Amino acid sequence: MKSLLIVAHGSRRKESNDEIFDLTEKIKDKLGENFGHVSCAFLEISSPSISEGIDQCVQKNSDKILVLPYFLSTGRHVADDIPDIVNEAKARNSNVKIILLPYLGSNSAVENILVSIAENEK
Amino acid sequence: MKSLLIVAHGSRRKESNDEIFDLTEKIKDKLGENFGHVSCAFLEISSPSISEGIDQCVQKNSDKILVLPYFLSTGRHVADDIPDIVNEAKARNSNVKIILLPYLGSNSAVENILVSIAENEK
Repeated sequence: MKSLLIVAHGSRRKESNDEIFDLTEKIKDKLGENFGHVSCAFLEISSPSISEGIDQCVQKNSDKILVLPYFLSTGRHVADDIPDIVNEAKARNSNVKIILLPYLGSNSAVENILVSIAENEK
Repeated sequence: MKSLLIVAHGSRRKESNDEIFDLTEKIKDKLGENFGHVSCAFLEISSPSISEGIDQCVQKNSDKILVLPYFLSTGRHVADDIPDIVNEAKARNSNVKIILLPYLGSNSAVENILVSIAENEK
């Protein structure tokens, strides 16, 4: 069974973290049956942590866990912190395939959204 | 003349800030002649600051400046810090229309990019 774990930064504002949980539900609906489990986790401040999120995916009997960084640029979180946590989880779960996906901001379609926001200003 | 100012967080990693400058060039090309000036600014750490970025747009004789937060969720930066800086710039430039656009993460097209990254994992 394949799982998706969306990883966000985490905020002191409950509204901000709630946005991530809502987004996760929408992604789950859009992905459909290809993914048995879709959840989110936070690098800092909020819970579950990324390690806890991965452990929850393992407990759901995932044999493949895709970790998707919901980040825009390659600051140290994307470049170092998240890979370190994922590598540590891989070492703890050698029987599960854990894959770190490209971060959101690396996808060129983001440019089109920015253009559309700028052009649709009323 | 209309300007677009893309506002990012700013990072200690030069590569991360360079990504924002590169992105800004791409957006400029895509927007074409509707915008006379397209630039970027940073909330923290990097320069130009948002205030400096707005001032530069004013110096280019912009009569309308659109400020686009390149952020994913409504943490305090999007909810408080950026609006405060934009309001202060509005007060300093009453002859220029300065408009704070919706932040990137509020656009539902972001969901589709996440779905596509998850589905295209090899």
